[in-house]
Amino acid sequence: MTIRLDKNGYGKNAIHLSKIIRHPDRQEIRQITVDVALQGDFDEVHRTGDNRLVLPTDTMKNTVYALAKDRFSASIEEFGLVLAGHFLHHNPQVSVVEIGLAEDCWQRMQFDGVAHRHSFLNGGSEKHTAFIRQHREGAVLSAGIKDLLILKTTDSAFEGYIKDPYTTLKEAADRILSTSCDVSWVYTESPADPGALYGAIRGNLLRTFADHKSLSVQHTLYAMGEAVLGNFPLVKEITLKMPNKHHILFNMQPFGLENNNEIFIATDEPYGYITGTMSRD
Amino acid sequence: MTIRLDKNGYGKNAIHLSKIIRHPDRQEIRQITVDVALQGDFDEVHRTGDNRLVLPTDTMKNTVYALAKDRFSASIEEFGLVLAGHFLHHNPQVSVVEIGLAEDCWQRMQFDGVAHRHSFLNGGSEKHTAFIRQHREGAVLSAGIKDLLILKTTDSAFEGYIKDPYTTLKEAADRILSTSCDVSWVYTESPADPGALYGAIRGNLLRTFADHKSLSVQHTLYAMGEAVLGNFPLVKEITLKMPNKHHILFNMQPFGLENNNEIFIATDEPYGYITGTMSRD
Amino acid sequence: MTIRLDKNGYGKNAIHLSKIIRHPDRQEIRQITVDVALQGDFDEVHRTGDNRLVLPTDTMKNTVYALAKDRFSASIEEFGLVLAGHFLHHNPQVSVVEIGLAEDCWQRMQFDGVAHRHSFLNGGSEKHTAFIRQHREGAVLSAGIKDLLILKTTDSAFEGYIKDPYTTLKEAADRILSTSCDVSWVYTESPADPGALYGAIRGNLLRTFADHKSLSVQHTLYAMGEAVLGNFPLVKEITLKMPNKHHILFNMQPFGLENNNEIFIATDEPYGYITGTMSRD
Amino acid sequence: MTIRLDKNGYGKNAIHLSKIIRHPDRQEIRQITVDVALQGDFDEVHRTGDNRLVLPTDTMKNTVYALAKDRFSASIEEFGLVLAGHFLHHNPQVSVVEIGLAEDCWQRMQFDGVAHRHSFLNGGSEKHTAFIRQHREGAVLSAGIKDLLILKTTDSAFEGYIKDPYTTLKEAADRILSTSCDVSWVYTESPADPGALYGAIRGNLLRTFADHKSLSVQHTLYAMGEAVLGNFPLVKEITLKMPNKHHILFNMQPFGLENNNEIFIATDEPYGYITGTMSRD
Repeated sequence: MTIRLDKNGYGKNAIHLSKIIRHPDRQEIRQITVDVALQGDFDEVHRTGDNRLVLPTDTMKNTVYALAKDRFSASIEEFGLVLAGHFLHHNPQVSVVEIGLAEDCWQRMQFDGVAHRHSFLNGGSEKHTAFIRQHREGAVLSAGIKDLLILKTTDSAFEGYIKDPYTTLKEAADRILSTSCDVSWVYTESPADPGALYGAIRGNLLRTFADHKSLSVQHTLYAMGEAVLGNFPLVKEITLKMPNKHHILFNMQPFGLENNNEIFIATDEPYGYITGTMSRD
Repeated sequence: MTIRLDKNGYGKNAIHLSKIIRHPDRQEIRQITVDVALQGDFDEVHRTGDNRLVLPTDTMKNTVYALAKDRFSASIEEFGLVLAGHFLHHNPQVSVVEIGLAEDCWQRMQFDGVAHRHSFLNGGSEKHTAFIRQHREGAVLSAGIKDLLILKTTDSAFEGYIKDPYTTLKEAADRILSTSCDVSWVYTESPADPGALYGAIRGNLLRTFADHKSLSVQHTLYAMGEAVLGNFPLVKEITLKMPNKHHILFNMQPFGLENNNEIFIATDEPYGYITGTMSRD
Repeated sequence: MTIRLDKNGYGKNAIHLSKIIRHPDRQEIRQITVDVALQGDFDEVHRTGDNRLVLPTDTMKNTVYALAKDRFSASIEEFGLVLAGHFLHHNPQVSVVEIGLAEDCWQRMQFDGVAHRHSFLNGGSEKHTAFIRQHREGAVLSAGIKDLLILKTTDSAFEGYIKDPYTTLKEAADRILSTSCDVSWVYTESPADPGALYGAIRGNLLRTFADHKSLSVQHTLYAMGEAVLGNFPLVKEITLKMPNKHHILFNMQPFGLENNNEIFIATDEPYGYITGTMSRD
Repeated sequence: MTIRLDKNGYGKNAIHLSKIIRHPDRQEIRQITVDVALQGDFDEVHRTGDNRLVLPTDTMKNTVYALAKDRFSASIEEFGLVLAGHFLHHNPQVSVVEIGLAEDCWQRMQFDGVAHRHSFLNGGSEKHTAFIRQHREGAVLSAGIKDLLILKTTDSAFEGYIKDPYTTLKEAADRILSTSCDVSWVYTESPADPGALYGAIRGNLLRTFADHKSLSVQHTLYAMGEAVLGNFPLVKEITLKMPNKHHILFNMQPFGLENNNEIFIATDEPYGYITGTMSRD
């Protein structure tokens, strides 16, 4: 019997890096987490334990910190492209480099309408993400948002679905819609200002969610993807993952009370999980 | 041998409740988690399994949802006092009721400066908390903030400490100070508007953190407590817990680079943990 | 512009189900978590909000509990095949059903060498997993282990790797090797007794890990995959994910002490992440 | 206004340490997490930022690793006493040292009934804990178990409780009882062999849980505490925390099926939370 190594990959995950960027009038904090993964000609590494082609994951980590000094001053998309290019260039045994980045959203503190020079507040679970898949012929750049927790108290319904012998769910003409959304989109080419474009796409996604007359999670997911594809020509594909953070009507009948669509049990599990990938035809 | 039951307590934890409050021009979402605990004359329950004095924790949960319908329309402090009073009044076997509440901070979405009527964004890890300890003679009301993640990039030092044979830490005249702060304070009496007072105290804590010239975490912790005790006469005691979210200078010397206090390793564990409780003398 | 829905999928995740199976001389506890996902002809659902082809995720959940009564008495692999078949058969609009299952490993308590009839202890983080991808032409069955936390204190080295300007890692002839392993394998056809086969494969993986003279994580990963492919003809492909749970030598030189490879800092992040997929050539 | 610092404490939490202990015929892995906290004369530290009496938490961490080399070879209770004594002895400004320790339960792998020399499997969520509170007059030593996840499928009932207008819970003559138990006990004096005594007490707790005819969680909690106080004279006080890991009967009536106490929804939240502290009268 001979064994084929169909796929391989290795790298360093969860490299947590903070950088202070000092301006004359204020300081910035950037806090990111980086994952590095390499694929390539690693058959002998696996078969015989010959490590001559192995760049240690500890060295990957050091490289990320060292390159951050001069090359991380703008968007994570740009820093990720630098990292991907560096690892591919210096490692001929590697065919594909994947770099994943996630940035914490620190908000500058404000007092009486004045932004503080150097103090920040946690901006929520939400993270700005980027992903680069770099091979010898070029790179594919994606950006996205992770753990974007959003909720609307109305303009959401779920009716007219299949009824079968296991159905107990009641139709809802007006319900809470909440999701901890993961969105990512692929660019046709690297944008001139990835940070600004990210902000614009994020705003478009939020506004679509807020204003949509939702007939299902799928319906809203599609509307959000359609809006981004319609408004941003540089986006060629978008994927949305929308777990349904269920808010279930609490049954008050046993107590002789009526629940006028106002008191809900917020549950974590089990949860509906809706995904879709969309592009232009 | 006879056994003494020195302490007992039981209740329901992690009751997740959402409420929509509908106004003519907008809707509000309130999302809270409630813990209920009872202490009292439960010796026979433990010794013989006689459950005649046991209010099931499932019933506590139902009660929280049912009372939320008419009694939860303002602050969590006020709703907590209602719950504590209810359980004490209806359960003569109970000597102490403890109610803990934590509210998620949803932020209303804004588009072009206009607040959306019914759509919300996750406001971060931060939670507004309240705690009521109610006994037959009266209630003690506390409020607080949990998981308040804050950071300043300068105006923080740590120098002049003990050096011993196990010391390797280098003194820092300028470092990142970051903490996921838990603060709680005890009121001398129930405030007229607990929600508004909470907001004012929170603002005072943030501003003190931002403006303080910190010589240690202890030093800043004390300044924050002192500010609240100095500005808010209704607060009689304040407790701060400030885990140190270390940002450690990355050593670039092996690569021939200088780290001018700009690139840091953000670590989770181990972490410094600083606590203090303060009152007026 | 027209939009193409390239991929879609929806379902219910994290359905937590427990079953007691009663035998004359003992009782069994089975505790599983089930994920259900459907793909198919859902274009109109997304575009117009027409829900006529939508089986609600709440109904999927009910179905899992209802079918567990009569059909979940042996392995999770067999129950998963039942669920996949059920959803495909009753939903002509669906082209693919994916069922993921994970079972907690409860251990029966033993006292003085005697197994207790009905009491159990948590068997660790480890879970037995199964995954079924069912389409109209047939089903692909995978099984696996998740969160298998294993460690060896010797017979592991990492030497001879690339040195570059960012290298600081010291070579190690004898180190701790620890990983929280996720393994899954694809069967060529459904085994007669999936539970027994799972146990045999698990034992083979553990023994290979324990006895291997490891020259790198990749080297051990390959040896484990090779052993399973060599010993179990029903396995046609195996994928291993082996995050490196680093145990880093604590530097005692500043204290005038020598660390003879005995005291380590156990770290969580960052972590090396090694993956590979193998099959017979 | 003058401010009183009523309580203060600071230290290092979550120090993760692994040690290999090498025997002629086998190797041992010990993996522990240590928390160190100091209280004392720290008023000036807080008021003025004078750090002359501050032992940095980084130094505490170094001390734990350095002392582990020669002093951590037996139980965590003994190592904790060494650490507490060290910090109190070398820091006259300190009045109280608290050391918390938790040990992971690695299980040696076995193949064909033979214990492997150096390979281990994760022993579950359960941890062995110890806690030392050391002041100038002496030390109080506690030991315990954390996250002990146990379950019994029968011999558990909950009936005869209070019914009120908010009651919907049905009485259960036969239910699943499951808890993720935290237990800790205080010793009158340090045992000769704390590790062996820990094992005996753990066994006694498990057996009592397994064999008890439970009429409520409180009833079982009391029985477990009573057994330990009755059998181990060195234990002077025991505290049990028993969150109820609810397994709720799934309602099959809507599907025309009967649930003969066999199919359950395993839920995490909300959860009942039962606590008690017991001693000899």
